Amino acid sequence: MLFRVTSQLEYDVRFPSTLMLNIHAQRSASQSVVEERFTVNPPVAFEEFLSQGSDNRFIRLKTGKAKRLSISYEALVDCQFHLLPVKTINAVPVAELDRAALPYLFPSRYCQSDRLGRLAWDLFGDLDHPYEKVRAIVDWIHENVEYVRGSTSSDTSAYDTVTQRTGVCRDFAHLAIALCRALNIPARYFAGYAYQLEPADFHACFECHIGGSWLVFDATRLAHLNGLVRIGTGRDAADASLASIFGSVQGTKIQVDCQLEPDQKFIPLSAKRAKSTAVSLEAINTA
Amino acid sequence: MLFRVTSQLEYDVRFPSTLMLNIHAQRSASQSVVEERFTVNPPVAFEEFLSQGSDNRFIRLKTGKAKRLSISYEALVDCQFHLLPVKTINAVPVAELDRAALPYLFPSRYCQSDRLGRLAWDLFGDLDHPYEKVRAIVDWIHENVEYVRGSTSSDTSAYDTVTQRTGVCRDFAHLAIALCRALNIPARYFAGYAYQLEPADFHACFECHIGGSWLVFDATRLAHLNGLVRIGTGRDAADASLASIFGSVQGTKIQVDCQLEPDQKFIPLSAKRAKSTAVSLEAINTA
Amino acid sequence: MLFRVTSQLEYDVRFPSTLMLNIHAQRSASQSVVEERFTVNPPVAFEEFLSQGSDNRFIRLKTGKAKRLSISYEALVDCQFHLLPVKTINAVPVAELDRAALPYLFPSRYCQSDRLGRLAWDLFGDLDHPYEKVRAIVDWIHENVEYVRGSTSSDTSAYDTVTQRTGVCRDFAHLAIALCRALNIPARYFAGYAYQLEPADFHACFECHIGGSWLVFDATRLAHLNGLVRIGTGRDAADASLASIFGSVQGTKIQVDCQLEPDQKFIPLSAKRAKSTAVSLEAINTA
Amino acid sequence: MLFRVTSQLEYDVRFPSTLMLNIHAQRSASQSVVEERFTVNPPVAFEEFLSQGSDNRFIRLKTGKAKRLSISYEALVDCQFHLLPVKTINAVPVAELDRAALPYLFPSRYCQSDRLGRLAWDLFGDLDHPYEKVRAIVDWIHENVEYVRGSTSSDTSAYDTVTQRTGVCRDFAHLAIALCRALNIPARYFAGYAYQLEPADFHACFECHIGGSWLVFDATRLAHLNGLVRIGTGRDAADASLASIFGSVQGTKIQVDCQLEPDQKFIPLSAKRAKSTAVSLEAINTA
Repeated sequence: MLFRVTSQLEYDVRFPSTLMLNIHAQRSASQSVVEERFTVNPPVAFEEFLSQGSDNRFIRLKTGKAKRLSISYEALVDCQFHLLPVKTINAVPVAELDRAALPYLFPSRYCQSDRLGRLAWDLFGDLDHPYEKVRAIVDWIHENVEYVRGSTSSDTSAYDTVTQRTGVCRDFAHLAIALCRALNIPARYFAGYAYQLEPADFHACFECHIGGSWLVFDATRLAHLNGLVRIGTGRDAADASLASIFGSVQGTKIQVDCQLEPDQKFIPLSAKRAKSTAVSLEAINTA
Repeated sequence: MLFRVTSQLEYDVRFPSTLMLNIHAQRSASQSVVEERFTVNPPVAFEEFLSQGSDNRFIRLKTGKAKRLSISYEALVDCQFHLLPVKTINAVPVAELDRAALPYLFPSRYCQSDRLGRLAWDLFGDLDHPYEKVRAIVDWIHENVEYVRGSTSSDTSAYDTVTQRTGVCRDFAHLAIALCRALNIPARYFAGYAYQLEPADFHACFECHIGGSWLVFDATRLAHLNGLVRIGTGRDAADASLASIFGSVQGTKIQVDCQLEPDQKFIPLSAKRAKSTAVSLEAINTA
Repeated sequence: MLFRVTSQLEYDVRFPSTLMLNIHAQRSASQSVVEERFTVNPPVAFEEFLSQGSDNRFIRLKTGKAKRLSISYEALVDCQFHLLPVKTINAVPVAELDRAALPYLFPSRYCQSDRLGRLAWDLFGDLDHPYEKVRAIVDWIHENVEYVRGSTSSDTSAYDTVTQRTGVCRDFAHLAIALCRALNIPARYFAGYAYQLEPADFHACFECHIGGSWLVFDATRLAHLNGLVRIGTGRDAADASLASIFGSVQGTKIQVDCQLEPDQKFIPLSAKRAKSTAVSLEAINTA
Repeated sequence: MLFRVTSQLEYDVRFPSTLMLNIHAQRSASQSVVEERFTVNPPVAFEEFLSQGSDNRFIRLKTGKAKRLSISYEALVDCQFHLLPVKTINAVPVAELDRAALPYLFPSRYCQSDRLGRLAWDLFGDLDHPYEKVRAIVDWIHENVEYVRGSTSSDTSAYDTVTQRTGVCRDFAHLAIALCRALNIPARYFAGYAYQLEPADFHACFECHIGGSWLVFDATRLAHLNGLVRIGTGRDAADASLASIFGSVQGTKIQVDCQLEPDQKFIPLSAKRAKSTAVSLEAINTA
């Protein structure tokens, strides 16, 4: 599936600062960047690199004396997704989890799974299979948390959202991740572009490691699980922030788009199919 | 410097559970394990591996039907430390920090640097050099936070300690890390064995990435900086927990020791020397 | 109903301090103290008075140079309770609530009703009558929060308990009060002696102002609603603390008892009756 | 001193709701309302009453079917203030505090004095006299907390402000109150009109009970202590809220003014005088 993604960010700069951006589409076995263009105006110095221990692509940029920065990214990305019949997904105990997934069992800044243990087991502990548990978590959040733009801040965490019950995609993801980890299911934050997201914006959802694969879920149900372009993966938004600012820089505009290439045909997962099928955005472990 | 470290842990097991332990001395360019012995009684199955993206050595262990577990670790560890004249340490701006250090700029479960920004800049922002800033942070915490055994819990974070002003080594480290990150200084949690620590126990302190090297600091001032044996490194205690329990297991005993080998001579850093000299437990980047 | 209540408190005193105790049975139109005895050993100076704006009876006591204090209270208390058929309880809108009840609509230290609004309305907003709402709150807490001795501290508030889901009577009461206030139902904290409470201790529960009367509820379901002897009433435990310490005093012993007088007969409310009957410990407003 | 105060509030009403307003100037021995006018447009039903246990004047108002409400209050208020030479103010220990002041020793929703104890004693414990302590608290807050409009929300409490170090008058008052109570100094919230406040708005500051009188302080230093018209007094903003909404009502406008009557002459306290003189807005206890 070929998507054309674009983002435009504008910043006012008070004094020379450093920006770290994570808006580039990730490259992986299941997602290739066919072409891309990244421009900064005025053309200040920057470097691109992979973050330590992940495939997130960071841009580090010094504003120099620029007073305004206009940043533009455009890419053509070929994304594969994989459908797994739910029946074939194994329940893997902690003792046999992939070692690479273990760090995603622990609490993080916005996902205090250590404080949500009893609640998580009360609500979802009776369900046998981790996949069922995660699906029940998604349903519960969708039913109990209202999507309200502007109702939360960058300080809001899962511990707040579980009680305050409003938030945006980031908050939905954090709460879901915290509940999964509390149930010993590795869970991580997913930031990306999303096809047909209304209104267009960056999107956050989450992945769980079940049966040997990272499966993707969206507690907001605003995005197609097979219409996502991965930017970054992390423990939570602290790891996969779109922009980290060191100095004094103020965002003034953000514009995001994700379109299907003209010759492509997008088939959303039918509700019926979604019930019996899990989605993975990674090459599936079929060992 | 050759240290003999030992730890003994005992657990009561309610039902078959999984334990992940991180009590093995790390192996690195500056720390080698000369010999070691790890035993579990009764002898249940376990595996050893490095955690994803770090050199922490984890044991994953299934209790099986055992009702009690007695775990014993003993190692002879050769530790090197490096002294750097403070004068030679460069101030490196965020724009030029080692990429490997960047993840340690972000907030984590117990180190909410994002909420401590204004406080950190008010208290320490006037100091020019990051090394001076960290030393001032250590002094401030030592002066303002009291070491009180039992005054905190596993839920206590830097945001609490900065106001409540009591804690144990873990809390001291978390607060220091959060303040450093708030000042754009990469900081990470250090868990280890400590020579002549009173009373003997596992110890936590922290490292900052300054001038291209990870330098070690201890806001409790209870340990010799050149008398530490590294177990683990992480963003905070969530990453470098000595024991993570999946199931129902209760710790009943913990006994830790760290002795100098008989033929070795330990020279503590004099207070005078400590003023002009930084300590690194890693091979120093002299590029 | 005649109850004999006793409490014995012992304290170690580090330096001359002041104690404020609230362990005396309240006097009111529906509760009279037939006889009582309060002794402090050694016999230091104290005064008794009613707290500002309530009928709570405080003892203010200066330890002087005493190193140990042994405090003993015994009283014979005649308590009336009133049963109201649920059917006869009116739903009174905020616009017509008794003015005296209005302060109990606002959030307090341990009852952050302002943060629980959406949750409360989601869970209980569909129920029409305030009495039904409160009963549903009691059921929900009883079902979802586990009574675990020692699981909380004096810092624990409703905002914690709603997620952490363990606590003791104080925490159950705080959560219930917060949820009631969030639904615009005046609610206050009740501290008292409780007949047949197992194990014997001071007890906390709560009262709601519905249909013109203060009705009593117990989310722990550990006490008989018609077997309570009121000590104090307040917005939460901050107002109705059994002992407030100004100085350095450490409690070393606490022993509480509540017995029926030999010639009295106690008839607990049957489960059936409890369904159709509300209990008030105050003279009922029959205007 | 004669002040003419006015306030205008406008609300959009979604469905029939109840409002409780506390914008009327208080009447007391030292403040008399010479004339006043309160209008609601459209003219819906309302009642005025004193809140339980205080002299705050509440308006309770039913919106009925009105879709918009325009509320207007105007009063001519005669305010007395009293200057006390600091030297004459006694330090009264808790054991001898006025009973009426005791409730203001305990923590409340926004003033968690119980969590700030160690910090308060570390910072201010060395000062002997309660008046000195409070003055040092005012100085410390003024120096360490920045007044930033919009930096906080109705959820912000002293526990946040002490670390986040920004806020508005309400936050300054809450932090000061919490620190005072932590030091066993009774402290309460003061809401009022303030002469020459820039920009004109309702103002919040605080009073401490020292030497038998309630003395007024302002940690923002934005108001003249002898230019205040009292609206309400309470434990914190939860008690002395200008408007409490029960239903669905949205404030759309707020306009406040406080002018000196033409024939009056206002003499601000000189900085020099302020150093040696305390201000009380209540009749002074000269017993």
